[in-house]
Amino acid sequence: MNTPRSLDPALLRHLVAAWLAEDVGRGDVTTNTVVPPGRAGRARLEAREPCIVAGIEAAATCFALVSYDALEFKGLVTDGAEVEAGDVLARIEGGLAPILTAERTALNVLGRLSGVATLTKSYVRAVEGTEARILDTRKTTPGLRLLQKYAVAVGGGNNHRFGLDDGVLIKDNHVAAAGGVSEAVRAALGNAPLGLKIEVEVTTPGELDEALSAGAHAILLDNMSPEMVAQAVIKADGRVVLEVSGGINLETIRSYAVTGVDFISVGALTHSSPTIDLALEIEE
Amino acid sequence: MNTPRSLDPALLRHLVAAWLAEDVGRGDVTTNTVVPPGRAGRARLEAREPCIVAGIEAAATCFALVSYDALEFKGLVTDGAEVEAGDVLARIEGGLAPILTAERTALNVLGRLSGVATLTKSYVRAVEGTEARILDTRKTTPGLRLLQKYAVAVGGGNNHRFGLDDGVLIKDNHVAAAGGVSEAVRAALGNAPLGLKIEVEVTTPGELDEALSAGAHAILLDNMSPEMVAQAVIKADGRVVLEVSGGINLETIRSYAVTGVDFISVGALTHSSPTIDLALEIEE
Amino acid sequence: MNTPRSLDPALLRHLVAAWLAEDVGRGDVTTNTVVPPGRAGRARLEAREPCIVAGIEAAATCFALVSYDALEFKGLVTDGAEVEAGDVLARIEGGLAPILTAERTALNVLGRLSGVATLTKSYVRAVEGTEARILDTRKTTPGLRLLQKYAVAVGGGNNHRFGLDDGVLIKDNHVAAAGGVSEAVRAALGNAPLGLKIEVEVTTPGELDEALSAGAHAILLDNMSPEMVAQAVIKADGRVVLEVSGGINLETIRSYAVTGVDFISVGALTHSSPTIDLALEIEE
Amino acid sequence: MNTPRSLDPALLRHLVAAWLAEDVGRGDVTTNTVVPPGRAGRARLEAREPCIVAGIEAAATCFALVSYDALEFKGLVTDGAEVEAGDVLARIEGGLAPILTAERTALNVLGRLSGVATLTKSYVRAVEGTEARILDTRKTTPGLRLLQKYAVAVGGGNNHRFGLDDGVLIKDNHVAAAGGVSEAVRAALGNAPLGLKIEVEVTTPGELDEALSAGAHAILLDNMSPEMVAQAVIKADGRVVLEVSGGINLETIRSYAVTGVDFISVGALTHSSPTIDLALEIEE
Amino acid sequence: MNTPRSLDPALLRHLVAAWLAEDVGRGDVTTNTVVPPGRAGRARLEAREPCIVAGIEAAATCFALVSYDALEFKGLVTDGAEVEAGDVLARIEGGLAPILTAERTALNVLGRLSGVATLTKSYVRAVEGTEARILDTRKTTPGLRLLQKYAVAVGGGNNHRFGLDDGVLIKDNHVAAAGGVSEAVRAALGNAPLGLKIEVEVTTPGELDEALSAGAHAILLDNMSPEMVAQAVIKADGRVVLEVSGGINLETIRSYAVTGVDFISVGALTHSSPTIDLALEIEE
Amino acid sequence: MNTPRSLDPALLRHLVAAWLAEDVGRGDVTTNTVVPPGRAGRARLEAREPCIVAGIEAAATCFALVSYDALEFKGLVTDGAEVEAGDVLARIEGGLAPILTAERTALNVLGRLSGVATLTKSYVRAVEGTEARILDTRKTTPGLRLLQKYAVAVGGGNNHRFGLDDGVLIKDNHVAAAGGVSEAVRAALGNAPLGLKIEVEVTTPGELDEALSAGAHAILLDNMSPEMVAQAVIKADGRVVLEVSGGINLETIRSYAVTGVDFISVGALTHSSPTIDLALEIEE
Repeated sequence: MNTPRSLDPALLRHLVAAWLAEDVGRGDVTTNTVVPPGRAGRARLEAREPCIVAGIEAAATCFALVSYDALEFKGLVTDGAEVEAGDVLARIEGGLAPILTAERTALNVLGRLSGVATLTKSYVRAVEGTEARILDTRKTTPGLRLLQKYAVAVGGGNNHRFGLDDGVLIKDNHVAAAGGVSEAVRAALGNAPLGLKIEVEVTTPGELDEALSAGAHAILLDNMSPEMVAQAVIKADGRVVLEVSGGINLETIRSYAVTGVDFISVGALTHSSPTIDLALEIEE
Repeated sequence: MNTPRSLDPALLRHLVAAWLAEDVGRGDVTTNTVVPPGRAGRARLEAREPCIVAGIEAAATCFALVSYDALEFKGLVTDGAEVEAGDVLARIEGGLAPILTAERTALNVLGRLSGVATLTKSYVRAVEGTEARILDTRKTTPGLRLLQKYAVAVGGGNNHRFGLDDGVLIKDNHVAAAGGVSEAVRAALGNAPLGLKIEVEVTTPGELDEALSAGAHAILLDNMSPEMVAQAVIKADGRVVLEVSGGINLETIRSYAVTGVDFISVGALTHSSPTIDLALEIEE
Repeated sequence: MNTPRSLDPALLRHLVAAWLAEDVGRGDVTTNTVVPPGRAGRARLEAREPCIVAGIEAAATCFALVSYDALEFKGLVTDGAEVEAGDVLARIEGGLAPILTAERTALNVLGRLSGVATLTKSYVRAVEGTEARILDTRKTTPGLRLLQKYAVAVGGGNNHRFGLDDGVLIKDNHVAAAGGVSEAVRAALGNAPLGLKIEVEVTTPGELDEALSAGAHAILLDNMSPEMVAQAVIKADGRVVLEVSGGINLETIRSYAVTGVDFISVGALTHSSPTIDLALEIEE
Repeated sequence: MNTPRSLDPALLRHLVAAWLAEDVGRGDVTTNTVVPPGRAGRARLEAREPCIVAGIEAAATCFALVSYDALEFKGLVTDGAEVEAGDVLARIEGGLAPILTAERTALNVLGRLSGVATLTKSYVRAVEGTEARILDTRKTTPGLRLLQKYAVAVGGGNNHRFGLDDGVLIKDNHVAAAGGVSEAVRAALGNAPLGLKIEVEVTTPGELDEALSAGAHAILLDNMSPEMVAQAVIKADGRVVLEVSGGINLETIRSYAVTGVDFISVGALTHSSPTIDLALEIEE
Repeated sequence: MNTPRSLDPALLRHLVAAWLAEDVGRGDVTTNTVVPPGRAGRARLEAREPCIVAGIEAAATCFALVSYDALEFKGLVTDGAEVEAGDVLARIEGGLAPILTAERTALNVLGRLSGVATLTKSYVRAVEGTEARILDTRKTTPGLRLLQKYAVAVGGGNNHRFGLDDGVLIKDNHVAAAGGVSEAVRAALGNAPLGLKIEVEVTTPGELDEALSAGAHAILLDNMSPEMVAQAVIKADGRVVLEVSGGINLETIRSYAVTGVDFISVGALTHSSPTIDLALEIEE
Repeated sequence: MNTPRSLDPALLRHLVAAWLAEDVGRGDVTTNTVVPPGRAGRARLEAREPCIVAGIEAAATCFALVSYDALEFKGLVTDGAEVEAGDVLARIEGGLAPILTAERTALNVLGRLSGVATLTKSYVRAVEGTEARILDTRKTTPGLRLLQKYAVAVGGGNNHRFGLDDGVLIKDNHVAAAGGVSEAVRAALGNAPLGLKIEVEVTTPGELDEALSAGAHAILLDNMSPEMVAQAVIKADGRVVLEVSGGINLETIRSYAVTGVDFISVGALTHSSPTIDLALEIEE
């Protein structure tokens, strides 16, 4: 099973510092002029709709970086927890002013990452009992790729490439430029760094044959029907990893999953996941 | 009418450089090992669904920064254009390799900003013929606030605060900390920088009265029914700016707009806008 | 009364790190070659002339960042204190070498901020007993704006805009470009973010009338005589904030303050404040 | 004679970008909402008081970086020029909006650097006809050291150390820590990088003797009377460079200059120089 | 054949800017005080010993970034060229001062990269006529990995992983932690991003069997004799990629190459390559 | 004796963070997928060949920055220690995963710095008993200058300039541009910052005379025979610092050292030092 590692704390601090700068700018004028200095506060962070939680550490980092005063952040759940509307995810205690200043940034990131994990989980459940695993894509929000891919893993999905440098995926335009599937695969096998697999996208049975004999490590079956995928699975016979993609949704995914394919990639995990509704309530 | 300025080119270059680094990492291995060096290419960027376009300059910057080879980017529409599925938004010409390397980053940003503009436009149309103007919130994607707020303006919406430092918005927690609406408003009037308006959130007619007599410049009517809003408009009598918020959607917004309120803020513009489906087609 | 918040510690650390880099470069060669490693030191930071202290935290940050050895910085006064020549502001204890390395950077920033606070206080005292409040401008030293504006607040002054984005101030060139005071004010009212006030500069009674009827939130009376200002106060009748500016100095300021105007802005607070003479004395 | 080199353009661009960010923030709201897009403008930058100009390239960089539109900046004088009130220093032509946005940043830097050059020139003139040269110190404004030292050179002064790493200056605290002038000088001679001179501060004739026999390359005579300095000059007899410092001002400097000393350092050049009054006038 | 792509120009500019800052600091005092401003210069960059050239673009970037004056850099050879002592690699023309300022930085980088390419070529030649390809390692100089790996490719070598994220290489410590070769390989197969190959280090025939049946994509034979490697090649029978490593040098490498192994990795390529002796000669 | 100061911890943290980013990229996939989370580990860092150790703090910083888990690093030797093959330099204890992730970066830097110190020491020993001191040059690895010069000091060598701004060294091209040795030296004496020595390179006895009478502080005798150097020492008679350079190696250096020259500079210290073989052994 896929157990995602925590996000790198140094990365989180770097990102959160930039996001706080984006929101706070030269200072939280409202809080600074209205809330009495030194006033203590206690807050709870709660869900307003059911979700799979992802990003608790990111939210904690918002409260940690907003102030040099000690804010105590106590997570009551960890990433991957399935919660209901009204469930309390964390409690924060310390200066009221910094709690209010960090609120929006924390909710913005936690809501988005939990949205990715929640949508991923629904796809994972849709293929339960089959061999197929859910895979993300590079259709992520600019600046948030590592976090969104982490949230995919939290939701039970698997990660495809993180960028153009940690995997070779030869698409139709590459094939055309190289002069054919075989030529493209062989060029990649000869020149890519040793640690990278060579995956190639095919759209016809003929291309599939070519990819298999050229020695590709993985093959992406693009926009094929479940029937075509099933035949490809038989033909590949376990020699390569098979991935399917192309407009597959919650209604159609199971028909692909039962074919025995290894991976189904779903762009929607990161380009169309909802933002989960969360709230920070000051308790006194 | 609200005519949004172009995004600051220096800001775009800064952001796009970071996004390209996120996607390209140590190099586009596939393109570098498969596409013959020096191969020329021509591509068209097209919409696969109807939308209001936003982010043409951001996309252009992706192709400009990916390479020191000259890529020619020719936008065929400008931001704000309303296009149909199949419409060509831009043509790119130059090295095939850099075109392929920049493709995903360009589509990711253009798809998201066009989604914001498209959703905003549907809200703007829902209140057409009334005095009400559509307003965004701070419920934006971390790292993308300026771009998303730009896209709101492209879609015909108005911008609320860009951060905690360019406007005072006193919410319930601030009121509680200050000891009442009057106390909070007066504290802000005395201490905030001269250029900032003082806005206060109220939830009852009593609080509205207090806000008016304390001298607030703007009042946010939170979670009120259209009837309560209508009475507030009468009571305020043009002395202050009135904004309404709280779970207002495309079905309910017109009932608020006809009350004569000045602004209706909609978090969904930036937290739940779709990603528009776009494609880059290599022409050869 | 205006109680300035502490400067953001993260901002201070960022600035001080850059200033130490500017002064220390590749290393304090003198101290490193002459002072025996490990030698302990104690120092006192004292004023050599009367002043209002501003920047104690900035000075403390210089000693905190210069070394990973524990330097103990003990502030004996806080910002806003009025001190005499010879008064001790702080004591520092720890390694002699890092104390000597940080000395000049700490004195440079503390001397300049205390100069701003001291000059501001003299203006504030000059208008004591009137309604007028002292306001700063954007005529600050490049790179030091937030700190200088903080020092203005420490000296009892109020802050005008921190930049071009947190307030609208329409000047003569803007008016000319827009085609008149009314046109300019209306354009700003329609397009500026909701949180910003619209202020317009006027130089004649006719422009003042225009500004009032166009709905400006604040009006800057530029280069007017005290008599003209007094008439403007009567005409405005509390409907808008009134600010005066234009070569007002310690001799002339009171004649403006007694007119009932709200704010008097003084560029000299930040462009011509003295550097306070301070010294660091090693005690053994 | 000391002919200062131009400031490094890359440094200027780095600094000016930060200063523009400080002033412009998320955008010049006034200009963006009031000035019609595309409006052309012409402006002249002029002095409002006599001064030695320094910083023309820095001002030019402000107008160059504020916009990707072509602003044409034409300097009519070069750094070092002596101008009168009303003299035009430069003309700027291009988009009216970017001209207005860059105005304040350009004036702030040019006014401060010209102030340093102007004060330096008055000291240089005060010692004319003697062998003494005017020297700056490290009492500079945090963040502006290179620019202020450049302005000193423009005004005809010489530069002392730029930081703690490009010169050894042993002060009283270093002497105390090392156990004496001889011990300190010898430690520095043995361990400092080869390219650096060893200078030591002395306050008595005995220390002067010690410094001379220990082999110091330069000696700083601190807080001595002109008579003591004259005797030191005789004793040193050209073997080392002699510098004097300590509260020397325009009234007293000549009495030191005639002693035959090599350098007189003046902290006021950078810690108490005025800001020159400048203006940007839009011409149509 | 392995045709290395040019280094990313944006990366080169970033690195070279940092290196110039490291060497030039606050300014090239010698050149600035001794060379007359505006003096033109012409120089040739030549080899003082035979080598394979690598880094011409890096050298060109040093001369491009040192100045805003136009320096014309004309490369006479391209990376990969085999040159003799006395051969001219490039000519530079423009201001004499910037040419002298950039000289050392350009020679430092070009000398080191050419050293890597030259050493790599000698290993490549030692295995000529066999199937074995030469592979680099992560034993690179901190900060120079991408450039050194580029130089390896210029010399005809192949690249292994660029970092810990673009390839899985399970070493003995990982095996021990996972509880065995099979356990480690299976964990990696289940959890690593789809694009990465799984390689495992083995030191005995038993571990080799385990790695083969667990489904590893590549196997590193560590510190084995040529005889053991030959047997491993027979056993693997083309099913996986085989790499050998461990103290292999120019004397012993051919005995490994003839076994039919796919790759031989050599740490010395980047940790013990010489610096090629180069010179910049001013021609007038 | 030359006692090098510790490297600035802030500099180390900055460099190490960049090096870890270079090696770790988006994450250590092998460790993260194979090593069970939370597994504890103990490791020893040992030498595999005799060396002078340099860079223990740099290695410690690698283990400190790789993780927010507490890794305990216990150095068993300090920089400058002379160790044998098999000697343990440090022990590390904490999470097994971060230990493995940091391993290569730590070994890479420690191996290179120890190589510089070791080579320097062999040169220092070769001149033992003479007055000559060993000096480094600017022929350093781009990005590592401060660390390499620190390692030179650890090995008992002295440092020449750290860059072009902390010393004046007039070479043949400068002399040619200035019109002669005297002209060049005088230009530098008049314009260089006060803290810098003026050194000039000479290749003939005539140039030596010129340099002496022009008042240079130091003279570099380039490519002279030991006999010529001996005569130069007699002629200079202690009035200036004398340095020799030019292809001097371990065989020839003593013949120069016995002439009485002050310094011998050796480019090989930093451009041709070996990488010391080190290993990290997991103990359980």
